[in-house]
Order: sequence, then structure tokens, then C-alpha cells
Amino acid sequence: MDRIRIAIVGYGKIAQDQHVPSIAGNDRFELVATVSRSAGAPDGIASFGSVEELLAAGIKVDAVAICTPPSVRYDIARTCLDAGLHSLLEKPPGVTLGECEELVRIAQAKGVTLFTTWHAQYNPAVEAAAERLAGKDIGTMRIVWHEDVRKWHPGQEWIWAPGGFGVFDPGINALSIASKIFPGTLILRGAELLFPANCETPIAARLELTSPAASGAISADFDWRHSGGEAWNIEVRTAEGETLLLSEGGSRLSVDGAEIVSPGHGEYPGIYAHFAALVDGGTSHVDLAPLRLTADAFLLGKRVQVEPFES
Amino acid sequence: MDRIRIAIVGYGKIAQDQHVPSIAGNDRFELVATVSRSAGAPDGIASFGSVEELLAAGIKVDAVAICTPPSVRYDIARTCLDAGLHSLLEKPPGVTLGECEELVRIAQAKGVTLFTTWHAQYNPAVEAAAERLAGKDIGTMRIVWHEDVRKWHPGQEWIWAPGGFGVFDPGINALSIASKIFPGTLILRGAELLFPANCETPIAARLELTSPAASGAISADFDWRHSGGEAWNIEVRTAEGETLLLSEGGSRLSVDGAEIVSPGHGEYPGIYAHFAALVDGGTSHVDLAPLRLTADAFLLGKRVQVEPFES
Repeated sequence: MDRIRIAIVGYGKIAQDQHVPSIAGNDRFELVATVSRSAGAPDGIASFGSVEELLAAGIKVDAVAICTPPSVRYDIARTCLDAGLHSLLEKPPGVTLGECEELVRIAQAKGVTLFTTWHAQYNPAVEAAAERLAGKDIGTMRIVWHEDVRKWHPGQEWIWAPGGFGVFDPGINALSIASKIFPGTLILRGAELLFPANCETPIAARLELTSPAASGAISADFDWRHSGGEAWNIEVRTAEGETLLLSEGGSRLSVDGAEIVSPGHGEYPGIYAHFAALVDGGTSHVDLAPLRLTADAFLLGKRVQVEPFES
Repeated sequence: MDRIRIAIVGYGKIAQDQHVPSIAGNDRFELVATVSRSAGAPDGIASFGSVEELLAAGIKVDAVAICTPPSVRYDIARTCLDAGLHSLLEKPPGVTLGECEELVRIAQAKGVTLFTTWHAQYNPAVEAAAERLAGKDIGTMRIVWHEDVRKWHPGQEWIWAPGGFGVFDPGINALSIASKIFPGTLILRGAELLFPANCETPIAARLELTSPAASGAISADFDWRHSGGEAWNIEVRTAEGETLLLSEGGSRLSVDGAEIVSPGHGEYPGIYAHFAALVDGGTSHVDLAPLRLTADAFLLGKRVQVEPFES
């Protein structure tokens, strides 16, 4: 089978740290170009200033991995899908649900693969948790996602602008894990969003959720104001009384206190293995649940103004 | 064919003014009960305090029309669908997209009809506009939805609470018309939401949209601060230069200044004709686009604080 000739669009930190080595480590792919305004690319790989330039260059390309900031993702993805390229989207797949629905429509019309990745879902510990909870009755689930925005998002002004999602930028990773492992639809029932007086997006959020699969409380607590260290934990108690703890952002799983999955090879090799399977199988994988939960939180949430944020 | 034995859940103004006469005017339906905390019902019709009481009463019921306030709609609809009742939902079908997705899942699992009504879509003028625009290239579309909240929503405190949607409560009617008549996906690109300092929902909103089917600007202007009279207009200019104007909330259609559809029999008889066809055909009709556009506006919108609202 011919290798899938792939270009990376948006050559920032995540592309360099994760996508390049995962593509290099997967025999089904061959990196043939990057698209980057700064013309960055690994040694020996062609770089173009725009997708249009890439398409006009006559290089054979089968697929793209779109790693740009989310606000420009839709226009780029449309161009790529319209050109018949299989498209992998970094998370979140767009800044609105409407964008994503339209990309689905185009991919179907063109008969190409669309893959909305949520990297946290590809942790081996997350997959193990999903298998363990499948078909179970759940008691409670508690998500705690605390970090210091100054440490993890220094200088990223866009996260505070409309469409930047604020604390939901990391929080949506938690929601992507939760919706993958939970054996039933997660439905938002209430939210409190804490907006700094000088920001357009929340610095903290508390969510209350429900599910037909759960008898007890489901909650999420996102907070960017924790300078003393991170907590990226999801604890699930089943109706039978078993307690699963996913910690360290979904990389570690323990059951009733005993660790059963330790941090391993990371998320992106699994993402590329799945992308190859989708392309080879002629199918798509579109998961909008994490973005839908985020949109529902903004729609239903009570807004609370808190002190201005000084970076 | 046996008539569809239907109960109305939530016996408020819309139920009394629209649902009761439309059910009475359609031979496929027979109103058998209401569910209402105040025990209201037409003469000779049984009334129950809850859906659970209705189900326990042993009356044969095939379908429900759920006309309660939106915040309680999901729990009621779940109970009805789980009991195998075909369910018609007043607009909006829920206060979150997640609720609606779960109702779709339950309806599919139970093999019953779910119908998310958007009443404004059933104006004959709206249907005529949709037919006329089908397959056309669009230039621009401009939505203006202005009214006086004191006149149209007196005493409705819930519209100002989280999940009450504020000016999107009428605005979603405009979005439901726009998404029905427009020959392509509508995608939100930006929004400004004007929140009174003392309210949890916006009193006005300006939306910018785009669509693969449009070459020019698409905008919506919702405003509840117009005491001088209403404007409920949608103007579409096609690429060929034709101008369609839907006015009076979608009840009147003119093309290039000449009226071609005048206000007629209203919206609800068409809703019940469609519901009967869905039940008889064993299918569902779920349209979440208006709610998705609203959620996207809250997700992406820039929040502007304006003067407090004094009712």
C-alpha cells in the first residue's frame, strides 16, 4: 500500500514536539511538507506559506494535520477537504459547532477522511478506563483540573479573547476524557463561569452534569489560579463501589488505590495509528461531544465577575 | 387508522391558544388529557399533576405535546420517550444541546417519533421562501428582530436567568427561519452580546455569520429595547439580484417589493399535520441548528455590559 503523504499545517510547538515524531514513527505516513507563515520545517522538508501555495506547488499530498490556532482552522480545513485531502484536526476542531458540522458535510460530500482528535483520549490509561467502565452503572464522577495559567499559557493572549475558551482550553481535555470513559451521555445541568473583569473568557468554571448512566453527582472544577502545582484528576465511583482514578491528565490509572496503567508512550502515536486506519478504511471519526459540552456551559452558565487578571 | 391519542404537557398560553385548536382541527388527533400543575384543561378533558400520574392512570395515550418552560422539558421528555410516547417539543427543544442529543438517542432506542418544532418554520411564507431559495447562490442576508421586552415578555423572570436565553428567546425564531430558508449551512463568525449589568442573559445581540452558499455578508440584529413597535424581518438578496423580504415574523413574503404570500392560517396546523405524518411514517424530525447557532453565539460572543434593566 502506498504511504500516506502528509503535510503539517501550522508548525508550532505541538506540531514539532508531537506530530513530527509520531509521523516519523509510523510507517504508513511520509511527511512531505509543512505550511507555516514562519516557513519552519524539519530538515529537508518543503515549507509553504499557505495551503493554497502547497496545493499549487504540484507536490503529491494525500493528507494534512491541521495544528494552527483554532480560530483559523475552519477556513484551512475547508480548503483542504475541498481539495480532497484527508484531514486531521488538532483539538478543538473549531471555535463553533457550526463550523465542525459544515466540515463533516464537506468530508462526506468529498468522500475523504475527517478526524477530530482529542489528544487526551489517546492515553493508554484513558482507553483502559473506558474499557473498564463500559456498560457499568456509575455512582459519581468528579473532575478536578487545576493549573497555573501563567505557567502553562504564558503570552497566549488569544485564550482571553472571544473564542479562546479561557480555562476551557485545558478543561476541554478533561471533558474529552470524561466523555470517552463515561458509559452514557454527559449532560450539563448548570455552570458557574468566573470571568476576570478585564477578560472575555473565564479563568475558572464549575460544572454540574448528569447522565442516564449515573445515579449520583457529576461535577467538574476547572481553575487556572493554582500557582502551587497542577491537579488533573478524574475520579469515578461505580455503583458497585469501585473507584477509578485517572491522574496526571489521563496518563495514570489506578483502581481502588492500586495503579494499573502507568504513563507510557504518550498520546500521539495512537492518534496517528488511528488516522491511518481511518484513511485506509475510507471512514471518518468525528467527536463533537467535548465542544458541545463547552458550548452548553457558555449557553447555560451563570457569569460571575472576579478580579482582573494581571499576566 | 386509529387516531393518535395525545396529551398536552404544560397547559399555558401557547398550549391553550395554539395546540388545543390545532389538535381539534386535525382528524388524526384526539386530545385525551393535559398535564398541568394548575390542573387546567379544556372542558371534559382529564388533567393530571405530572406525567407520572398520567402514565399511572391507565388512560391510553400515544403521544405528547410538551409545552412547559424549556428548563424542565428534558426530564419530562425523557420520561415520555421512555414510556414509548411519540413526543412533540415546543421550541427550544431543550436548554442545552446535550439534552437534545440524549433525547434523540432515547427516541431511536425506543423506536418512537421525536419532533423538535420551531413554530416560525411552519409559516406558509417561510416555506415559500425556502422553496424559492433552494439551490440558489446567495449574496447577502440581513435579519432584524426588534421588539419591546416589556410588551412581549412581561413578568417572565426566567428569560433573564441562566438558560433563559434572553433576547435569543425571540431571536431563535429568526434563526429557525433563517436556517430553514437558507440553501447552505449558517456558521457563526462573531457576535456581540449586550448584557444588562443586573441580568444573566443578553438584552441585545449582533451576529455575523457566513455560509458556503453566500458571497456577501450575513448578519442578525436582535434587540429587546424597541418600545416604538416591532420589526421582525429577514431580507435575502440572491446573487442574481432578487430580493426576498420575509416580514412580520415570517408570515408575509415579498419578492422585489411585490407580496407573494400573505399571512394565512398560522403555523400550528402545519406543525400538527407534520407530526401526524412523522408518527404514521415511523420517523423523527430533529432540527438542532437554531439551538446550535445560539450556543455558538454564547461560546464565541464578546460580552458587553450595558445599563441595568428595570422592568
